Amino acid sequence: MAGSTLGTLLSVTTWGESHGKGVGVVIDGCPAGLPLSETDIQIYLNRRKPGQSRYVTPRKEEDAVEILSGVFEGRTTGTPISLIVRNTSQRSKDYSELASCYRPGHADYTYDCKYGFRDYTGGGRSSGRETIGRVAAGAVAAKILAELGVTVTAYTKAVGPVSINYDCFDLSVMEQNAVNMPDVKAAALAQAYLDTCREKGDSCGGVIECVIHGLPAGIGEPCFEKLSANLAKAVCSIGAVKGFEIGDGFAAANSLGSENNDAFYRKEDGSTGKRTNHSGGVLGGISDGSDLIFRAAFKPTPSVSVRQQTVNRSGEEIEISVRGRHDPIIVPRAVVVVECMAALTVLDLMMISMTARLDRIKDFFSSI
Amino acid sequence: MAGSTLGTLLSVTTWGESHGKGVGVVIDGCPAGLPLSETDIQIYLNRRKPGQSRYVTPRKEEDAVEILSGVFEGRTTGTPISLIVRNTSQRSKDYSELASCYRPGHADYTYDCKYGFRDYTGGGRSSGRETIGRVAAGAVAAKILAELGVTVTAYTKAVGPVSINYDCFDLSVMEQNAVNMPDVKAAALAQAYLDTCREKGDSCGGVIECVIHGLPAGIGEPCFEKLSANLAKAVCSIGAVKGFEIGDGFAAANSLGSENNDAFYRKEDGSTGKRTNHSGGVLGGISDGSDLIFRAAFKPTPSVSVRQQTVNRSGEEIEISVRGRHDPIIVPRAVVVVECMAALTVLDLMMISMTARLDRIKDFFSSI
Amino acid sequence: MAGSTLGTLLSVTTWGESHGKGVGVVIDGCPAGLPLSETDIQIYLNRRKPGQSRYVTPRKEEDAVEILSGVFEGRTTGTPISLIVRNTSQRSKDYSELASCYRPGHADYTYDCKYGFRDYTGGGRSSGRETIGRVAAGAVAAKILAELGVTVTAYTKAVGPVSINYDCFDLSVMEQNAVNMPDVKAAALAQAYLDTCREKGDSCGGVIECVIHGLPAGIGEPCFEKLSANLAKAVCSIGAVKGFEIGDGFAAANSLGSENNDAFYRKEDGSTGKRTNHSGGVLGGISDGSDLIFRAAFKPTPSVSVRQQTVNRSGEEIEISVRGRHDPIIVPRAVVVVECMAALTVLDLMMISMTARLDRIKDFFSSI
Amino acid sequence: MAGSTLGTLLSVTTWGESHGKGVGVVIDGCPAGLPLSETDIQIYLNRRKPGQSRYVTPRKEEDAVEILSGVFEGRTTGTPISLIVRNTSQRSKDYSELASCYRPGHADYTYDCKYGFRDYTGGGRSSGRETIGRVAAGAVAAKILAELGVTVTAYTKAVGPVSINYDCFDLSVMEQNAVNMPDVKAAALAQAYLDTCREKGDSCGGVIECVIHGLPAGIGEPCFEKLSANLAKAVCSIGAVKGFEIGDGFAAANSLGSENNDAFYRKEDGSTGKRTNHSGGVLGGISDGSDLIFRAAFKPTPSVSVRQQTVNRSGEEIEISVRGRHDPIIVPRAVVVVECMAALTVLDLMMISMTARLDRIKDFFSSI
Repeated sequence: MAGSTLGTLLSVTTWGESHGKGVGVVIDGCPAGLPLSETDIQIYLNRRKPGQSRYVTPRKEEDAVEILSGVFEGRTTGTPISLIVRNTSQRSKDYSELASCYRPGHADYTYDCKYGFRDYTGGGRSSGRETIGRVAAGAVAAKILAELGVTVTAYTKAVGPVSINYDCFDLSVMEQNAVNMPDVKAAALAQAYLDTCREKGDSCGGVIECVIHGLPAGIGEPCFEKLSANLAKAVCSIGAVKGFEIGDGFAAANSLGSENNDAFYRKEDGSTGKRTNHSGGVLGGISDGSDLIFRAAFKPTPSVSVRQQTVNRSGEEIEISVRGRHDPIIVPRAVVVVECMAALTVLDLMMISMTARLDRIKDFFSSI
Repeated sequence: MAGSTLGTLLSVTTWGESHGKGVGVVIDGCPAGLPLSETDIQIYLNRRKPGQSRYVTPRKEEDAVEILSGVFEGRTTGTPISLIVRNTSQRSKDYSELASCYRPGHADYTYDCKYGFRDYTGGGRSSGRETIGRVAAGAVAAKILAELGVTVTAYTKAVGPVSINYDCFDLSVMEQNAVNMPDVKAAALAQAYLDTCREKGDSCGGVIECVIHGLPAGIGEPCFEKLSANLAKAVCSIGAVKGFEIGDGFAAANSLGSENNDAFYRKEDGSTGKRTNHSGGVLGGISDGSDLIFRAAFKPTPSVSVRQQTVNRSGEEIEISVRGRHDPIIVPRAVVVVECMAALTVLDLMMISMTARLDRIKDFFSSI
Repeated sequence: MAGSTLGTLLSVTTWGESHGKGVGVVIDGCPAGLPLSETDIQIYLNRRKPGQSRYVTPRKEEDAVEILSGVFEGRTTGTPISLIVRNTSQRSKDYSELASCYRPGHADYTYDCKYGFRDYTGGGRSSGRETIGRVAAGAVAAKILAELGVTVTAYTKAVGPVSINYDCFDLSVMEQNAVNMPDVKAAALAQAYLDTCREKGDSCGGVIECVIHGLPAGIGEPCFEKLSANLAKAVCSIGAVKGFEIGDGFAAANSLGSENNDAFYRKEDGSTGKRTNHSGGVLGGISDGSDLIFRAAFKPTPSVSVRQQTVNRSGEEIEISVRGRHDPIIVPRAVVVVECMAALTVLDLMMISMTARLDRIKDFFSSI
Repeated sequence: MAGSTLGTLLSVTTWGESHGKGVGVVIDGCPAGLPLSETDIQIYLNRRKPGQSRYVTPRKEEDAVEILSGVFEGRTTGTPISLIVRNTSQRSKDYSELASCYRPGHADYTYDCKYGFRDYTGGGRSSGRETIGRVAAGAVAAKILAELGVTVTAYTKAVGPVSINYDCFDLSVMEQNAVNMPDVKAAALAQAYLDTCREKGDSCGGVIECVIHGLPAGIGEPCFEKLSANLAKAVCSIGAVKGFEIGDGFAAANSLGSENNDAFYRKEDGSTGKRTNHSGGVLGGISDGSDLIFRAAFKPTPSVSVRQQTVNRSGEEIEISVRGRHDPIIVPRAVVVVECMAALTVLDLMMISMTARLDRIKDFFSSI
């Protein structure tokens, strides 16, 4: 099935393996008239590049994007935008010994079960490099959203046991530390914790939080295509994500209705606001005009150098130690991926929402 | 957009409002040859019926299902199965005073923003009655899954602060208590807690856990159509769900790679097993042959009789108290809804997975 | 697969067999705010009702539609509109002798091959009654299109060898003759021809032409989702259709480029027009602002009372004569079906086209 | 909208403009285990290459395909196959004078209406080069179909007024003449006719016929997803196609039921056959086991050097003569495109059909 395509009106199709010729994405349904350059996209790709600190893998990847189609004289034409990033830094030999073994926590075994064999070099399609296509497409979506007054901002909320303190929340410092935390002190503690993991040849997980600001009320469709449901799918489709929550999330399960309900009030400009935001910006799955807030839980990077027990393709029990250049934590590099998946989801649903009311459709066609 | 349709090969389309003529579902793509009667479906619908205990709403709803099409001489024909449940117990006048006000925690405001007006009787399309179509369709999916050796079992894991104790886990008692908990003691504590909420005119949330047993390895598609991502969407599309997690979920964010990885081993029959199941049955988004385990967090029922502040359509600030026959908790009735959403998702992905390998496609067509 | 669902933003799902409990449709994605009553839909259903003349089947069918959901206080709410027409005039015994035989020209054999068995009463799902759901949905689409200034008009162009003469073209007479021809003389000749067929126990085919007026330029998507391609699929999905052509159609294959190209010119109001319309209103698959014109070829009704050779389920060669109340021609009743399929297709693509330009999306969201 | 994606389980997404950096396609859902090389695809691309005779454009295009992903050690892995063909022979200056004018018969005007501006070099996305992605993907589909015993063969049936004579039908000569006709004499006449067109600076249309052999009965879904309807859409999505017919097509509209019905009979091996094939291989939209036969009508190439009247972007009336290297007829090069669109459609529906019966699904999962 078309597992590599996401979206209805704005549709993205990603392709590529970690050690093949490259990775890329085709964006279809991008509205015409958006000024777009490779730099717009490269800025986002650079945010997920490894090698920025000692906490992310020291592999050197160029990840230079090339626009192959869909842009003419600097603007999008409305036709498919094809983007490619050539792979340049593969060392396939690193992986030769893993060809016949199933690394615990990786998709080796499940791909073999599904397809009968697999591209065993660097994780193949299940590699983190698959997210390059998502980020490249998300950069385009985010640029469009900015034109519509909507911003999407993700950051690291927790690294293992270390969480940010909202009293110290400062987005401006997020890009200044290697863990992408908007809290200087928490970032320092997180880095110390990661050093410990690294020394032990181990890895750890974390939590990313994302805030979408400026979203009008009314986005998301009833029933199966709720904004929250689509965000859940988009975020849980990122490799290492094991949990998703919106607003108070799991904490809402242990709260009272009288606490969890957000009271409405009349704003000074006459519009309707909410005094609190336990809902996280959605009611009935549809945006309520407040900031949309969600979180994603990431499991630890499965590639650890401590010895692990597993089996090989022949069913023999073996011991392995995954060597190579791996992140001790995936979270900091995944921040931009979460942001991009959210941007793609929200933009698609905004476009879809344009046809919800007959009077607005009539206005649209009578004005063109 | 088609927000009320779910699925690719097995597709369900639900319709209906709480106080309209009825609710229903069209199941398209159901394989031919399944013995199917109204009783098969009614058993599932009865599990979500209110009036079973003092913790769920005392409204009397018949919820009797009628098969309108797609079944001939007791078996499914492969063509659309249309199911209808007539509404019989609506008291629209209960809601007349709420017509122009926005109940906190409900979808009143967002529907008005999206559509310009709304069916204000009983929540309209955003009512819990919308799940009748999901359950009716899920009953059919579950029956097919049973024929394929796959069982889906959900239960209440937590009611407010009361969680089950896995040492006392006993599925056989789940249907014997009003909160659908597989733990006698926890059920009693939960019921006491609910009595307190009820007395205060308040409501509470909870957590549902779901286990899928018998699923072969290899189900789910790479990238955007992962099994976990599709489950996340299906579950988060249920009205009151605010969080989803699979396997260790949010706890995985604070664990080490060496702990979180599940070691593979050789089973006695020569097949591959996992010594632990932190993954919750998916690796790389594809089933790994272990039990699939996920949880959903439900917020408290927003309809509480304690006074709340809100605004009306004219933007005036008002106070309301939501009277009427409402559940103090939605979780027990939602257990079967979670089960059904999981069944629909898994069956669709199983059917899709049949085309993953060329050799199996060849075998299929050479044998017919 | 979901073979019974059509459309992206405006989606319709039909269900039902000719001799089951009823037939119906769920319309999802209908914009909110359309005044809609059962009468609006019944008018369209009456146009496909049998029993209007001696050339169509004398079965009495009520075909009274009931709106089950999606309309509140006389207007669409934006949520699914469920429509049902109960079957009232089935005589299943008529078909008992055909249970095990494959009628030539019918879908009996292919349904058995596909599903292993079939509902043999009255054609089951492959019956012409399946089109009731299409027409009910199309009536809603046509009403919306009318609000947008777009009209869809189909009529019988040919009955067997008898074609209309465009010099005598008069739409006002179309509903006054039993063959729905907009030409009094041709209608008389066609009726005479049908009488001959009827006497011989035979049937005949015909051609329906459809004109869509008022469509703005720019509707339809490049590549696979061209307006022409979607119309072709929608029209060829009607049971007896064997051919589709747009503009000059097959005649274009034997014309010169210099003839077939339509010269553009400047209209008095400064806009751009075409001096001819060989294109039939699409260029590159996208509407060009001219009338959209297409035709569909219908095969003869396969139910004929002359004796035919065939086989039964056991593979034995037998002779049959299809008795019962059948139309000697399907074309007059199919006129409204073609119209409705066109309306559904065009409206969906109009809604989709609203997101083609970034400046228009910005205007839309800045005005709400 | 995602106008550039086709298919459900086997999905293809094409991208690229005639004078951009290249054109390509992403094939998603291709079953794992197919041996695949660039040569397999190049053979198909070479069949649509220009420069093979004096009747097709003398532009030199390399059209060398590169596999970027989805193939590992010579076999498909089940993940997306990304294919690219770099553009090498563009002369953008040829088109500069056409930048602001609307060529009759081309999509210049409709693209401007839809998107506000367009890539005016060489037709941009509406260029015939867009079909390279279709052919590259179709080559893969055809290779899979061959493994399943299904062959798809298209050929030129008519060039302007010259049609093949079925008494002289000889597929082996099709590739030996520049018009791809399976009839030596007709090919000679067609070539003479084309010479005349060419001398006058004019162009002509034609008809392509396609036969699909070996298709099992039961392929295609009821109602909207009929095999015939999907073929109609796929074929009518090719740029210059103005008509589609299956089996007797438009001729069926002027035939009697007694003639048009195909009698079933018992074959020597006990299976069921049809004595004639007026249906063209589908009954009720589902394959009946006979050869599937359809035809597509192509309009004349709109680029003619005779002078034509048109307008420019400013709405001024002008005269133009389209110079440059253009085919006087598109049909011979489109033969492989038709074949490929049919292959993609049929393979997708074959894969979908695997889930039609519960017993077969059970067999499938019990055997893995």
